[in-house]
Amino acid sequence: MRFKFPLVAIGLEVVMIVLFALYVQYETDPNISQQPNSTDATDKDRFLELYPLFQDVHVMVFVGFGFLMTFLKKYGFSSVGFNLLIAALGLQWGLIVQGLLHSHGQKFHIGIKNMINADFSTVTALISFGAVLGKTSPVQMLIMTILEIAVFAANEYLVVEIFKASDVGASMTIHAFGAYFGLTVAGVLYRSGLKKKHENEESVYHSDLFAMIGSLFLWMFWPSFNSAIAEAGNRQYLAIVNTYLSLTACVLTTYALSSLTEQEGKLNMVHIQNATLAGGVAVGTCANMEIPPYASMIIGSIAGLVSMFGFKILTPFFATKLRIHDTCGVQSLHGLPGVVGGIASIVVVDMEVSNISTVPSQAYALGSSIGTAVVGGLVTGLILRLPIWGQSSDKKCYDDSVYWEVLYSVLNKDINDDSTSESSAHPKPTCLCGILCCEIG
Amino acid sequence: MRFKFPLVAIGLEVVMIVLFALYVQYETDPNISQQPNSTDATDKDRFLELYPLFQDVHVMVFVGFGFLMTFLKKYGFSSVGFNLLIAALGLQWGLIVQGLLHSHGQKFHIGIKNMINADFSTVTALISFGAVLGKTSPVQMLIMTILEIAVFAANEYLVVEIFKASDVGASMTIHAFGAYFGLTVAGVLYRSGLKKKHENEESVYHSDLFAMIGSLFLWMFWPSFNSAIAEAGNRQYLAIVNTYLSLTACVLTTYALSSLTEQEGKLNMVHIQNATLAGGVAVGTCANMEIPPYASMIIGSIAGLVSMFGFKILTPFFATKLRIHDTCGVQSLHGLPGVVGGIASIVVVDMEVSNISTVPSQAYALGSSIGTAVVGGLVTGLILRLPIWGQSSDKKCYDDSVYWEVLYSVLNKDINDDSTSESSAHPKPTCLCGILCCEIG
Amino acid sequence: MRFKFPLVAIGLEVVMIVLFALYVQYETDPNISQQPNSTDATDKDRFLELYPLFQDVHVMVFVGFGFLMTFLKKYGFSSVGFNLLIAALGLQWGLIVQGLLHSHGQKFHIGIKNMINADFSTVTALISFGAVLGKTSPVQMLIMTILEIAVFAANEYLVVEIFKASDVGASMTIHAFGAYFGLTVAGVLYRSGLKKKHENEESVYHSDLFAMIGSLFLWMFWPSFNSAIAEAGNRQYLAIVNTYLSLTACVLTTYALSSLTEQEGKLNMVHIQNATLAGGVAVGTCANMEIPPYASMIIGSIAGLVSMFGFKILTPFFATKLRIHDTCGVQSLHGLPGVVGGIASIVVVDMEVSNISTVPSQAYALGSSIGTAVVGGLVTGLILRLPIWGQSSDKKCYDDSVYWEVLYSVLNKDINDDSTSESSAHPKPTCLCGILCCEIG
Repeated sequence: MRFKFPLVAIGLEVVMIVLFALYVQYETDPNISQQPNSTDATDKDRFLELYPLFQDVHVMVFVGFGFLMTFLKKYGFSSVGFNLLIAALGLQWGLIVQGLLHSHGQKFHIGIKNMINADFSTVTALISFGAVLGKTSPVQMLIMTILEIAVFAANEYLVVEIFKASDVGASMTIHAFGAYFGLTVAGVLYRSGLKKKHENEESVYHSDLFAMIGSLFLWMFWPSFNSAIAEAGNRQYLAIVNTYLSLTACVLTTYALSSLTEQEGKLNMVHIQNATLAGGVAVGTCANMEIPPYASMIIGSIAGLVSMFGFKILTPFFATKLRIHDTCGVQSLHGLPGVVGGIASIVVVDMEVSNISTVPSQAYALGSSIGTAVVGGLVTGLILRLPIWGQSSDKKCYDDSVYWEVLYSVLNKDINDDSTSESSAHPKPTCLCGILCCEIG
Repeated sequence: MRFKFPLVAIGLEVVMIVLFALYVQYETDPNISQQPNSTDATDKDRFLELYPLFQDVHVMVFVGFGFLMTFLKKYGFSSVGFNLLIAALGLQWGLIVQGLLHSHGQKFHIGIKNMINADFSTVTALISFGAVLGKTSPVQMLIMTILEIAVFAANEYLVVEIFKASDVGASMTIHAFGAYFGLTVAGVLYRSGLKKKHENEESVYHSDLFAMIGSLFLWMFWPSFNSAIAEAGNRQYLAIVNTYLSLTACVLTTYALSSLTEQEGKLNMVHIQNATLAGGVAVGTCANMEIPPYASMIIGSIAGLVSMFGFKILTPFFATKLRIHDTCGVQSLHGLPGVVGGIASIVVVDMEVSNISTVPSQAYALGSSIGTAVVGGLVTGLILRLPIWGQSSDKKCYDDSVYWEVLYSVLNKDINDDSTSESSAHPKPTCLCGILCCEIG
Repeated sequence: MRFKFPLVAIGLEVVMIVLFALYVQYETDPNISQQPNSTDATDKDRFLELYPLFQDVHVMVFVGFGFLMTFLKKYGFSSVGFNLLIAALGLQWGLIVQGLLHSHGQKFHIGIKNMINADFSTVTALISFGAVLGKTSPVQMLIMTILEIAVFAANEYLVVEIFKASDVGASMTIHAFGAYFGLTVAGVLYRSGLKKKHENEESVYHSDLFAMIGSLFLWMFWPSFNSAIAEAGNRQYLAIVNTYLSLTACVLTTYALSSLTEQEGKLNMVHIQNATLAGGVAVGTCANMEIPPYASMIIGSIAGLVSMFGFKILTPFFATKLRIHDTCGVQSLHGLPGVVGGIASIVVVDMEVSNISTVPSQAYALGSSIGTAVVGGLVTGLILRLPIWGQSSDKKCYDDSVYWEVLYSVLNKDINDDSTSESSAHPKPTCLCGILCCEIG
């Protein structure tokens, strides 16, 4: 571990710089070839118009996903820190891979849509990161990011260019794909030593509040996510409002079901942080279609219901019966709602509400997203299983101190110094909870 | 309580979906009737232009109000969680009620201004939530949201359509209204058992930092709040800059007065979190009027002064003499500065600086906002007093564990497990502070 | 201290109001003289277009800098609170000073660019605040804000109007200037009593997570910072994308070097919070130049390297050998990367990649920024050394309780009340860590 991580990280950055030197240009470059995937002649003029939506998506990626995963009591540094690392690599790699695919290997220029798409490809890796959170090393995550984004870009190309399917908010190509890729990897990397719930795998009060920061930024900016690459004008308008309505409906359903299914009718923070977002996932594919407003609210309600079913039934079932352990519940937040989104789009197209796509196109897209995710996840999982990537022991899972300097000892020392004057008569105990607290004389 | 909350929440969502199916359409719908309250022919074209301002307001609603109220040491889950619940319901209900009123019961379409106005109507409910924070059940809050937004929409209709008054940043119709509605409800629901300060009604170090997240996002985005529905061009420009200047002046006044009035010249976090925002409230009504820049700075300074007067004198007076207990100090943050905003607009119009409105219009608007708030609050309070809404006991006020699963026991267990090896000789104490901390062997 | 701080704060606000009354007008004012520094005829029309970028910068100033400095375990209130105070004063004063300089003492009007520039001038003060964090009183900070922004504005005038240099993202005029101004002040105010590391000068687990909120908002919105005042169109586009790419490359380099240089290959939160941002600083001056995309990635990588060199080598060297103690490491985050940015611009102009400026212009700008910073810092430091500004003792450095009400005793009392039933047999210890935690019976 001593040199593997630095070398892999530096090596990847060097590769990125070389690839950018070979393939990426600015729009101002006079030698630029016309960008193939730019159907919209005014893309360049829309740079500043779309920039606020890009920044919303950016906040979702870095603060949203980063803080949503800080719910674990001893894994906050890794959650928000590795999230930043994965995303910074994913942005560069996603920009290259998607650009090269759509330009058929030619040089291409960066526009605002490439930047949004790079954020999107990063999201797939971050969803999968949620499934394996606390059980993988930084080197494993860097490798997973590279492999997953390559598979994602291939599937996205298939869905958009070959199947001509529509998936504006990427319910299928990002959310279902990222979840089932991550779950497959988690299955391959299953640690039977963690069968019994790990003592670190839980939240404390303030870690749940940090997670709410992430959850709320995801919730608020989801309309930007689902509309960022939509066609200008009506379709973008529809994508924003449909997502907004779906999310509001999903909140009430989630609160009702969380209270209904928990002991004594209490609410569970896991559900509030996650299932309230399912409405954004599930409405993604249909967001720019001409569905009436109440239809998005119904989709949002169903998403909340399905996500709660995931958390209460499916996640435990997967963990115990299928030996697939899903730390953040990405199946419930991204997987099931993503599938709901794909199915909803089939229904909408079949009812001839929208002629933006066809039933077979949408069905192929859903199948392909899940299929490539499972196959890609299998291969990636097998590579990550090699015992050379600095994995931590089962006992040290979900623990920042494996990869981060956490100042336990210094903290203890200071407080002991403080205490001598006031309570020297008492025995000197040690700080036992380590993270949240303190030393008592 | 076991089934009341889930049933009320689901029931309300079903009602919302039915109402949206009956009355709400997209602009793309060919059968749409011309929206009556749309005086601006280019509203649709402004969707993306106003979208960043809408998102700023959205952040204020969900992160701003949500985290501002997390200052209580054991009530963070409820503050940020019920804030989300109230807002998600309020957005849907506000959109319907305001839309129906302005369309006189006809079908109407959703535009960016409806969405901004829905956020605004939600804010009234969240302000009132601050007054009763920690003392009401989720069912009570859902009911209050429904009733308050209906009264708010009626008053807003009166102010805008009948009195033809101007209140671009809603100092009167949102801030004064929300505060005095909430205070009236708090008065009706007064619990004499809480006369002596409740042991949970205080902050701890980190809960105050969480609250600063909310406070800062409110502070930064207040110019968007006050300008979001302003007329395009000069009026929107004025609304942004006046608010920006008022807020900066308010900060210095607040810091000075907090230090001046507290023991040993120290600063008080309650003042910094709240009174610094009063400048945004007080300049709201005048924000789009042709006042000179220094005038907004004077309004901001007065707002800071008045808000500090509220915190130091009026809030204790209300609690002890009038039996109106105001958990978050909404009187000082929203009530008094809102009244200052209304009076300022009367002065400005009277001085013929701006001909955007008339003196009687503004005076009627101020009176009507406070009057409907008190009457509406009285009726709402009496309904909420019925002993059937799952209220908690006095002892359990300001305590998340009544409505949320908080993992005390699991936390204790883990730490006991940890401790055995190191300190088995010591007696096993229990975690006494419950939330913030830890177990010592 | 009892009255000094309130009087200084109120006095400064009164001065600001008078200055605004004398010199600042709205664009709507018919008597307005043409704004001299407005070369762009359509500035006014761009108000709403640039407003989202302004808000991004605003978030960087208040949440970014505010929370980045909350890493200290007992200084969170002061970090985020004094940040707000300094920024609120700095916005007003920066607007006045820069406006007067560019209008040559005439009345001028406020546009979006003045507001962005006011945020910029505030940033210089906040950077210097980082160098002296925990060791200065609020009165000292107010004085430093006034003096530093005046010197900054003079240097900025020199750089832009006299030298005709280019510094769109202000690597030299803000970052290098702010850092070396702050370091000089820190040197003059050196406390030999703090030679040995102060027990409060360290983070705890949750304070590092709060700091990550600040760090991430800075990271995400840096492209807005570097492009906010760029020429509309291509130059703004270049500034955004170059900054975005530089930052991503900087992250990977920083993670690699942090792991490489720390014990056992672990990552250090100080590096992750700070050095990952150096890419934004260093690419600032070149951001709007026609460099190829991979060049910004190289600049970002170098920035990460240089920043890490600062944290590992230079900061300890300055503290021990030069008696300049730099609390937040502003030398490594702003100083060195700012110098790299200036040098990079000289190289780029020299290679004739961009003809936006000349080599001597850029060299003069770099020299002048550092020179005025050191001279200004010296004078400011000497004024701040006068023993009349309410400085705290060495022992009370980095401690909120000097300037803020922190509720230790109340917290203790409550918990003692709770504890009586369960553990009355145990002796009553005192809460020793004070801030983060709890009382055990």
